[in-house]
Parts: sequence; structure tokens; C-alpha cells
Amino acid sequence: MEKLYGGMEGGGTKFVCAVGTGPDEIIDQTRFATTSPEETLEQAIAFFKKHDIQAIGLAPFGPLDLNPASPTYGHISATPKPGWSNADILGPFRRQFNLPLAFDLDVNAAAFGEYHWLPENRSLDSLVYFTIGTGIGAGILINGQVVHGLTHPEAGHMRLPHDRQKDPFPGSCPFHADCFEGLANGPAIGQRWGQPADTLPPDHPAWDLEANYIALAVANVIYTLSPQRIVLGGGVMEQLQLFPLIRRKVHEILNDYIVSPTVTGSMQAYIVPPGLGKRSGILGAMALAKNSIRS
Amino acid sequence: MEKLYGGMEGGGTKFVCAVGTGPDEIIDQTRFATTSPEETLEQAIAFFKKHDIQAIGLAPFGPLDLNPASPTYGHISATPKPGWSNADILGPFRRQFNLPLAFDLDVNAAAFGEYHWLPENRSLDSLVYFTIGTGIGAGILINGQVVHGLTHPEAGHMRLPHDRQKDPFPGSCPFHADCFEGLANGPAIGQRWGQPADTLPPDHPAWDLEANYIALAVANVIYTLSPQRIVLGGGVMEQLQLFPLIRRKVHEILNDYIVSPTVTGSMQAYIVPPGLGKRSGILGAMALAKNSIRS
Repeated sequence: MEKLYGGMEGGGTKFVCAVGTGPDEIIDQTRFATTSPEETLEQAIAFFKKHDIQAIGLAPFGPLDLNPASPTYGHISATPKPGWSNADILGPFRRQFNLPLAFDLDVNAAAFGEYHWLPENRSLDSLVYFTIGTGIGAGILINGQVVHGLTHPEAGHMRLPHDRQKDPFPGSCPFHADCFEGLANGPAIGQRWGQPADTLPPDHPAWDLEANYIALAVANVIYTLSPQRIVLGGGVMEQLQLFPLIRRKVHEILNDYIVSPTVTGSMQAYIVPPGLGKRSGILGAMALAKNSIRS
Repeated sequence: MEKLYGGMEGGGTKFVCAVGTGPDEIIDQTRFATTSPEETLEQAIAFFKKHDIQAIGLAPFGPLDLNPASPTYGHISATPKPGWSNADILGPFRRQFNLPLAFDLDVNAAAFGEYHWLPENRSLDSLVYFTIGTGIGAGILINGQVVHGLTHPEAGHMRLPHDRQKDPFPGSCPFHADCFEGLANGPAIGQRWGQPADTLPPDHPAWDLEANYIALAVANVIYTLSPQRIVLGGGVMEQLQLFPLIRRKVHEILNDYIVSPTVTGSMQAYIVPPGLGKRSGILGAMALAKNSIRS
């Protein structure tokens, strides 16, 4: 029998836990509301206790302390989510399971999931996964490894050109006003146009403006990292009409400066929706679990 | 006797070649003007032929084809430098030397040099080296390896906020007008203020504006990659008054969002001048040579 791995994707609204061998075989799955850290983690632990698993991958929302040498390794850092600042995520699992435990940011897990489970991505040296929803973030894979660095990437907060004559919206980010996230997350779209983003029709001008900001961020990541594929996931990217708009605008911004058929062509295989659909995060958490045994 | 390595740093104005064991022992060095590819590379080859070397690191200006599987691997791609578009750099060396030959972009070599030769950098997972001069570029080291990806990073062309009321200068980049390089390279400073950058006094308002753009680019790289150190080199950064200005502005832009003592503190060991001074590139080319034997 193939080995079973557990994965936990911990979001600000809900937690998802799953057990299985990979994308083709999930033998059990549960989801529950994010309440207090104690109650939420207890539910996750109770779920995994029911199964004979080899390792668990924990992928909560951030910011996280990912430095194994730090006394607060495995904790969430300062977060606006009430009750969750400095919450110890890894500790309760360490006390309950004598198993390899992987720990990484939700968007890093999603990036790793897209890389690990999809043959078309496994051959790449580098891949960037953006989640664009209530928050914006990016996970970066280089040579098969998730990039952490000093803390972990927070690419949603990069600064972009903002033409206030064309778009007077001041931005929704409490830290930076009109950073990428402040201009382009779901709440920014809703506030700018006076109705929830997912109620705007596909031909609404909101999407052209949204594609503009996403294309600027994607172009900046192409310039900075030269990744071999860029995956765009998250709630906002369920608006699939964004993809052709973003590809066209990235072309315009790059202006043929990067000479590679991958970016000078249609970019249909370069700027792509998640191959795992909405399951990148939870399957990524399972991939981190699997990887923690091999490494 | 320690092994000798050759290094070539090929710029648009001059080429530098050196032979030695490392920063403490350069046994021979030469520099000559960049003329035609044939003549220039012949001079470099003649220099290295005089020495009993184990490997050569070639680090020319770009853009370069760094993909070993490509038929034009080792060539310069499209460049405005007359005569150098599609010039084969690696080929002539392959025909003349039966030695390991490393080939990478000049700024990538500089990043690798800072990492390889300096003990304070060898322990880092990630380091970014910016050159800010006539051109702007960045080399990125992750887990001891230079990041290439699709082609190679071109971080000088990232798009930044540009307040045209405060700074009406339209930008100097022929491809993107007011990208980072177009707003902040040496020629942009000269054109904006009507005199060469290096003739402006240290308290000229040019430097505050320059620090502003550099800080935005540095902050974007911190958000995107979370590097453990950022080295700022190149001609413009010889204006050392820029460093405290940049550090202060990076603080203001981040606004305490990244919680790490490395960035919330003085950043004096985080945003730094090159430890190898002006020799990062040539010593980096030698480090690439040394590394090509070990790998």
C-alpha cells in the first residue's frame, strides 16, 4: 500500500485537512471554520489522529516564523486576525505526533504543490505561484526548493506605478495604501467599484484595470527572477477573462526586451491558472509532508 | 602551489582579465578597450595563454544566452552595442582552451564573487547584488547558486512608482522610458539635472531623488525574494552618501511590515557596499572558474 500523508491548509476563514497519497487519492478530507487557535488546531489534530499517516504538512496563513533556529519557529507572527498573533502552530502537532512535520506558508505550499505533483512543472528550474484574492502573495520555487530567505516573500506588497488620474482609488492596504495588494486584492476591487468583485460582469472595466496591476506585478517578477512559469491562483483569478488581458499587458510592458520564445509568444503556457485548480494549497501541504520524509 | 584561475569581466567600455588564486593573490592582470568582438576576445585569449591556469570564468555584459541546451549558448543576445549583437563569446575560448570554462553575466559574476570570497556572505541562503551605473542590473544568489531561470534577471527594468509632479523627467530607457534603469541610471541623473552625475555635490537634491528610486527597487526585491543581504555596487553607488538615505527610505516604504531585526534595525549590515569594492566582477569571474572545477 502506498504511504499516506496528511496536509493542513490553514486560512483566515477556514481550515482544510486531508489525508491521501496525492492528487488522485484523497482518502479523507475535512474543513472547519477558523475560530481560536486552540480549538482550530485541536480539530485538525483529531482529524489526523484517525489515520495511519507517515508525515504531516502544515501550511497556515502568515506571516510565519520559518527559521528553524528561532525560538518562535512554527509560530504565526503579527497578524490582524484576532487571537492569532504569535499563535504556535507547530508546537501542538509536535506534542501530539511523533512524525516528520513540514511547516511552510500557505502560498509556498501551493507553489510547491504545483511543482511537485504536475509533470509539466517538475522539469522547471523556477516557478512563481501568485495567489490573488482577499490577500495577495507569492510562493517561489527555485531548483525545486521553496525560497524563504530572511523571512518569506511578501510579493503582494511590492510597489507599482499607480496613475491616480486614471484610478483615484487610494488603495486598501493598512500598511502601504497603494501597494500591489492595496490596489488589486478582492476588497480593493469591491471598494473601488462599490460592489463586491464577484458581482461585476466579465466585461466591466474593473477587470481591465485589475489586469493592468497584475501585469505590472508579473512583469516585475519576470524582470527580477526570470521564472520559467507563473501560476496565477486565488479567488480573483477565477475570473478567467483576466488571463488574456494580463498576457497582452505583460507583452506591452516588456516591449520585447526579454528575448525568449516563452515570453515573446502567446504566453499561454507561461502565465497559467493553477494546474491543481483550487487544491494547490492542500495538495501542496501533502507534498511538503511527502518531501519531509525524503529529505 | 595553489591552483590558478582566470577571470574575464567584459564591459561595454573595457575588458578586465586577471589570473590568480583569489582576492589575496592576483599574479597578473590586464585591461583593454572594448573594440570589435574578434579583436577584444583575441586580446583576452592571448593574455590567458601566458599562464598555467586550471579554468576560466567569462563574465561579459549582457543580455546573454545562458541556456546550455541552446544553439546560441555562450553568445551575447541583442545589444545596442554596435557589432556585439549575437557575438559568440564562449566559442573562441572553447576552440583555444581545453579547460573548464564558466560563462555568466557580469552582474551574476559580481554577486557570486561577493558570496564566494567573503566569509560574512558564505553563510547566507540568499544575496542580491545590484549594479547601479550606466546600466542597472541585479545578480541573485540562492542557496549558493546564481539564479538564471528563463534567461537571466533584468531587475533594472522593473517598473516603479514615478511621481511626475515631483520628477517630470520622462526616463532614459529606450525600451521602457521610466523603468528603474530609466529613472535612476547614471545617464538619467545627468539628463535630469543637466550635468554629469559625478559632478553633482553630495548635498545636491539629485541624490535624495536617486535614493528614492533605489529604495523602491530594493523594497520590491525584499518583498519579492526576502534576501538575506543586498549589496549595492556600480558607479552611482560610489556616492556613499546614498547608503544612509536608501536605508532610511527602505524603512519608510516597508513601514515595519517585514518583522525581522535585520530590516527593522539600522540595516547597516543588510544594505551594504560591495565587500570586494570595484573587484566584485573580476573576482567573481575567477570564483566561477574555481567553482566550475568543483562542480
